[in-house]
Parts: sequence; structure tokens; C-alpha cells
Amino acid sequence: MRKAVILLSGGIDSATTAAISSDSGYELYCLSFDYGQRHKFELNCASKVADFLHAKEHKNFRLDMRRIGGSALTADIDVPKNREIDTNKFNIPITYVPARNMIFLSIASAWAEVIGANDIFIGVTAVDFSGYPDCRPEFIKSFEQTLNLGTKQGVEGNERMKVHTPLINLSKKEIVELGTKLGLDYSLTISCYDPDEQGRSCGECDSCQIRHQAFIAANIADPTIYVK
Amino acid sequence: MRKAVILLSGGIDSATTAAISSDSGYELYCLSFDYGQRHKFELNCASKVADFLHAKEHKNFRLDMRRIGGSALTADIDVPKNREIDTNKFNIPITYVPARNMIFLSIASAWAEVIGANDIFIGVTAVDFSGYPDCRPEFIKSFEQTLNLGTKQGVEGNERMKVHTPLINLSKKEIVELGTKLGLDYSLTISCYDPDEQGRSCGECDSCQIRHQAFIAANIADPTIYVK
Repeated sequence: MRKAVILLSGGIDSATTAAISSDSGYELYCLSFDYGQRHKFELNCASKVADFLHAKEHKNFRLDMRRIGGSALTADIDVPKNREIDTNKFNIPITYVPARNMIFLSIASAWAEVIGANDIFIGVTAVDFSGYPDCRPEFIKSFEQTLNLGTKQGVEGNERMKVHTPLINLSKKEIVELGTKLGLDYSLTISCYDPDEQGRSCGECDSCQIRHQAFIAANIADPTIYVK
Repeated sequence: MRKAVILLSGGIDSATTAAISSDSGYELYCLSFDYGQRHKFELNCASKVADFLHAKEHKNFRLDMRRIGGSALTADIDVPKNREIDTNKFNIPITYVPARNMIFLSIASAWAEVIGANDIFIGVTAVDFSGYPDCRPEFIKSFEQTLNLGTKQGVEGNERMKVHTPLINLSKKEIVELGTKLGLDYSLTISCYDPDEQGRSCGECDSCQIRHQAFIAANIADPTIYVK
């Protein structure tokens, strides 16, 4: 069985990505980050998703991005609520975490090398996205090239290391449809940037809004409990 | 004053790089990593070098690379001693830490964004090097491109973010000569991969050997205390 490292946050996109890689026959090595995010509750969801998909291993990696700051998710900056989101416009919001995907992918690359995996999966999408520069295909392509120049496995391995982005051209509606078809249980996932202490979603942040609209568009019941 | 983030390990190369950036008029934001390295003593040296160069800030960032492993520096694998080193041959040794520079540069990029710096300095050299793939110019160039595609500052900033490698074409001898000319006190630095509990250098690992040969070649007294 080919091994794959999956970046797993506990949200819809990464859970669907994990389900796709499992369905493609990969053995899953799931990697989550406890990076000081205010929505740390998502780590519980990541564990549940990893279990649900029978991951071979699930690693929570600590990384104190609060020491870096600069984002509503890792500093004392309020998460915007009820914002009008134009997902067609490239506009980087305050929930952007500096260099997050580059950092996460770099650590995923290190782990991939150590376990001898050539494949890394990340659930970025360039449709219905939040305007993060590190979710764009040009970034991923460039990262993949860098990875193949900067690691032992990339330089000496028999095949190129690959960063898979199976959702890159899918809308959120299509993502939810695909995951549902693959039997994924979305009640295990959470999208909210600012859940309450019981892990209930706020219903008002960008991420809640995008999630809820996706379920409506797909005509699938949203299993999420929203506070508002 | 332009700000720069400097990757500072406490060794010769990063200390010289910091001295060069200081001499070029940058305000120094030094970044060191407590990544589970067996030669953790180097962090004391990094602090001393940062003080010596009047850094504006020095951050120690924790990152448990032992959870990833795969290197003599971060796993229970012996550091090779008295090895014959051919620095002209591309040969990746067991002290290579998977994806280390990619991870370090990614976190440096995040900090650079937050403080509004466009410049990152790293003391890699492609001459007299240990055969690490992530010290080669093609890796650094590719990383810089990725950085400018994957960060807010890279995408929206007025100028490209730049990864400076002032040592890339210098031999270790030339590095020591340059640092000495700039007034750097090398007694503050350490190179050893396997120092004893008092922080004394082993004198036998690749890094000790390369360091000591550099001082001899430059005809400068090596201030290092070697156990052997």
C-alpha cells in the first residue's frame, strides 16, 4: 500500500481530501497542527475523522504560531462576523495566518520523507475560497518544486514527491457532494473559526457561512449545530 | 532602518550572516529554533551572538522535530565521528534533518510578514558544505519564489520578499576571514553536533572538523575548546 501524508484540520475540505486519498487506496498518515488557533476544538474533529477513515497514524504537531501572531486566528484580533464574502474576488482577510500552508506542508514533507511516502495531500480549493494566497494552485505547484529540491527524498528518491490537491477545482457544493458519495460523515467535522466552549459553531464567521451555503446548495442536510 | 529576519543557529555561518546583515545596515530580528536537536547548547550561543550584534529582537521558537525524527540530530542515531569528508561530493549524511531549512525559512517568512520585513537572511553555503540538499542555491531560489506566491506580503507587498544567502559562494575559510574582518567574536559560537554537558565541542563530528580546518586555513586562532 502506498503511504500518504494528509494535512487534516478537522474541517470539510481536509476531511474530504482524506476520504478521497483513502478511496484511492492510500494508507493514511494524518497530520494536524495545534498551532495556537482559537478554534482548537477542530483537533478533536481531526482525530474523529482519522479514526473514521482508519488512518494508520494520526499525529498532532505543536507549533506555537501565537508567538508569530498577525492573524485573527492566532492573535487577539476579533474574527469578523456576518461579513459579505465575495469568493470570486482575491482579497486576503484578517483570518489569513502568515505562511501557514507553507509551514504545514514543510512539516508534512519532513514526515513524508521519514516514513518513505512520496505523496502529500492538502485540501486547498481555488473555488469558493477565502482569498488565502497559500490556497492557490500556483503556490502549490511552486512548493512542490521547492520540496523536490530541498529534501533528500526529492533529490535522491526514485520518483518525484507530489503534493495532491484533489479539491482545487471543486466548489464547496461539489466537495460536500463528493464526500457524501464517499460515505464521509460530516457531523465529525467542524468549520467554525470561533466556536464556543462546547465546540458549537458560531454560524457567523466566513467559514461557517461558506460551509452552510455549501450544504444548502448541495441539498444535503447540514449536520452542524450553529449557535446563531 | 530596514528590518531583516536572520536565521541564527549559533554556529559560524549564521553568526557571520548576522554580522553581514548588521554591517549592511539592517535591524536584526534573529530567529533560533529549539527543535529537539541534540546540540541544544547552540541556543545559548545564538543568544550571545544576538546580544553581541545588538539585535532588536531574538526569538527562540520551539518545534519538536523529534516527533518527526529521521536524523542523527533529532533521533536516537549516533553522530558519525572522524568521518572522511569530501565536501566536493554531493552526499547526504545522516545528520541531515528532513526538510529543516524549508521549515525554518517558512516560519521566518511568517515572522517577516508580521513585522513588515522583506528580507530574510540564511547562512547556507554551497562550498565546503555537508551535502545537505536544502543548502543549495537552486533550493533557496525556488523557496523564494514559493514564498512570494504563498504569503500576503509576497502577493500584495510593494516589493518582492528576498532570501539573502551572503555566504553561498564562500568557502569556510573565507567565511571565518570575513567575520573576523567584521569584528565578530567567534568564541561566542559553537559548531559541534554532539557537545558534552558543559557545551564543549567533540572535535570529531563533521561540523567540528570543517570548523577547525577553516580556522587553520585562514590562519586565525580557533577559540573553540575541543574535548578531543
